[in-house]
Amino acid sequence: MRVIVVNSGSSSIKYEAFELEGLSAAAKGLLERIGTQDSRLKHRWLSPSGGWEEIVETRPVADHREGLSFILEVSSRARSGSAPPEIFAVGHRVVHGGEKFREPAIIDDAALGTIEELIPLAPLHNPANVAGIKVMRELLPHVPQVAIFDTAFHQTMPPRAFHYALPYDFYQSYGVRRYGFHGSSHCYVAKEAARHLGVRQEHLNLITLHLGNGASATAIEKGKSVDTSMGMTPLEGLVMGTRCGDLDPAVHFYVQKRTGRPFQEIEGILNKESGLKGICGVNDMREIESRADGGNARAELAVDMFCYRVRKYIGAYFAVLGSVDAVIFTGGIGENSAVVRARSCEGLSALGIALDEQRNKVIAGGIAEIQAEEGRVKILVIPTDEEREIAQQTVDTIERVKGRDR
Amino acid sequence: MRVIVVNSGSSSIKYEAFELEGLSAAAKGLLERIGTQDSRLKHRWLSPSGGWEEIVETRPVADHREGLSFILEVSSRARSGSAPPEIFAVGHRVVHGGEKFREPAIIDDAALGTIEELIPLAPLHNPANVAGIKVMRELLPHVPQVAIFDTAFHQTMPPRAFHYALPYDFYQSYGVRRYGFHGSSHCYVAKEAARHLGVRQEHLNLITLHLGNGASATAIEKGKSVDTSMGMTPLEGLVMGTRCGDLDPAVHFYVQKRTGRPFQEIEGILNKESGLKGICGVNDMREIESRADGGNARAELAVDMFCYRVRKYIGAYFAVLGSVDAVIFTGGIGENSAVVRARSCEGLSALGIALDEQRNKVIAGGIAEIQAEEGRVKILVIPTDEEREIAQQTVDTIERVKGRDR
Repeated sequence: MRVIVVNSGSSSIKYEAFELEGLSAAAKGLLERIGTQDSRLKHRWLSPSGGWEEIVETRPVADHREGLSFILEVSSRARSGSAPPEIFAVGHRVVHGGEKFREPAIIDDAALGTIEELIPLAPLHNPANVAGIKVMRELLPHVPQVAIFDTAFHQTMPPRAFHYALPYDFYQSYGVRRYGFHGSSHCYVAKEAARHLGVRQEHLNLITLHLGNGASATAIEKGKSVDTSMGMTPLEGLVMGTRCGDLDPAVHFYVQKRTGRPFQEIEGILNKESGLKGICGVNDMREIESRADGGNARAELAVDMFCYRVRKYIGAYFAVLGSVDAVIFTGGIGENSAVVRARSCEGLSALGIALDEQRNKVIAGGIAEIQAEEGRVKILVIPTDEEREIAQQTVDTIERVKGRDR
Repeated sequence: MRVIVVNSGSSSIKYEAFELEGLSAAAKGLLERIGTQDSRLKHRWLSPSGGWEEIVETRPVADHREGLSFILEVSSRARSGSAPPEIFAVGHRVVHGGEKFREPAIIDDAALGTIEELIPLAPLHNPANVAGIKVMRELLPHVPQVAIFDTAFHQTMPPRAFHYALPYDFYQSYGVRRYGFHGSSHCYVAKEAARHLGVRQEHLNLITLHLGNGASATAIEKGKSVDTSMGMTPLEGLVMGTRCGDLDPAVHFYVQKRTGRPFQEIEGILNKESGLKGICGVNDMREIESRADGGNARAELAVDMFCYRVRKYIGAYFAVLGSVDAVIFTGGIGENSAVVRARSCEGLSALGIALDEQRNKVIAGGIAEIQAEEGRVKILVIPTDEEREIAQQTVDTIERVKGRDR
């Protein structure tokens, strides 16, 4: 029995199959460039011998329907004719659950309708998620499907944290508020931290830092998200690969007046031409660090700004939580950049946050503790696994529903 | 000999005259509704007997020229024919000094030209400041005039704090960056704090909170501003009377799409219909507290959001400074609302910030220390006096220039 996780983007599908028993990965892959003549599928699977094998195949793929059929076909071929494994459930990552979904939802027509109603809040993401769900329901009509929302984990935020200081009607009529994203990742590393520390989540206050091409910080009080840096959309908060993060809300109008660019173009710039890329021309942190090492001043500024803003959020969330047991780094940058971790923790020893330089440098996968001996606050590096978290929540949801039905 | 301070707004002129000796206030006033048939001048002056006297007069005032003539005429009448005091200098508050003015500037044609060049950065404020300067130069052609910039105090911010994560060209070509405002107030209370504590500013790290209808927080390291919550404009940062402060930069586009309102109208809403007023309908904190006491949920939310955001900035600036000697409350709300001070400091005892409830309640003008016995960080309430600071900087500037000329 397997659990399949599907993460449909606008022109890509990421997926992973887990053994129900122990949720170990059995196969995974990525289909890119959907809608073009040369869509490219990279499928990997665990062979009976225990090693990973790989197929890469390119062909025209018009849409998500053709894409998911393509994936199922290649998966079947990879098993070289052996009987298809039974599918326990499919878990779908859905970006925006608005205020409607505080937890995962079994997908039926009503749930699907609600996810479609939320499209205005996430016009770039929810349509692709919906397309993936619809196709999988058709392809596997008897398999239960579950939607896991990026926003759901943050639905525990109190009003003082989720409201903006805008006309209240913007919230009531149009749902303008902070939702937060990266929920599966923040939730996963918080649980992993509790497991690693041997303390129940209910007794821990955590600051989780998901630092990747998208980046967000979350304040977690006794297992519940109480504030997070992304807002109504994933544009707010930390400096990201190409997104600006926090910005004076008057800049839009000024830039429009000075440059004559239409607002629609400015929206694209804030999302795709800003962040690290805007500051120094590239958005890959490894490349940026290497340029900074080579004396490139803009690259150095980009690293400095990125880490400075992380530091400010650590301070802000320390104030929100009152006391902090652990700060957790995850995501591509959080897991791999010793420089970013070190500079993000600089000067925080009055908060009990102090990093051991040596421990920080020699991380070799798995969970690592990198605080200095004198640091009161644990500093952990935890590899995130959003797909595994989605698989786990999918299983939990189905078992909870079965439990209710009994 | 007197120093006159002029603060010209778009439809108002605030002014104050100080005795050069000791900078004690001699007269002050406010002219409102310039450009209407019933402009109203309230002029107050210290009578020879030592008490304050007052004239209120209404007449049509077309522009700043007529306004300043009106003020000079009424001031003269208030002296009832006694010889006019000699004017040592006039200090003008100028909102935006961009990157051109890191300190006060003696006003000559070149300086005035530069202030005019900065109008695109502060289209609502600098034109009025320029009008006031031009008229005063004509009315008092032999008196030196000095411009004191709201932004100058913050020009010490490092690049990591003043840059936004936007295309770098926005900074180079259009000056898009954090400038910060309320400089005279933050600077004044920081100096007052050092004087009160008997410690040189060079040995103090401070967080200054100017909480009024406009509100901003500043991190001051050894006398220098290193970060501040207002940005390119005064719209960013804390929750204000009618301004939204921090906001997801994507909200503009979403609101435009959902409501069909033009962006120009949205700019007005973020500036004039948001903040406390947007949340609960009114922007006067006394009124809001009284409504919250009466059980009004929106008023309670407004207070909660206001204080929560102050708390987050205290935490962020604590992280920026590494260690903090004092947190300073000033401005109309900061000086007068015990509730706001108390709730802004809630849960910060791990940072050494703890407020004495009793001391916080019984403040009677002047500087007050309100930290609890166990609090490592001093918490001070300091009445701000931007006019006095402008007068002081005006005098200092003229004496510095005289020193150089000798």
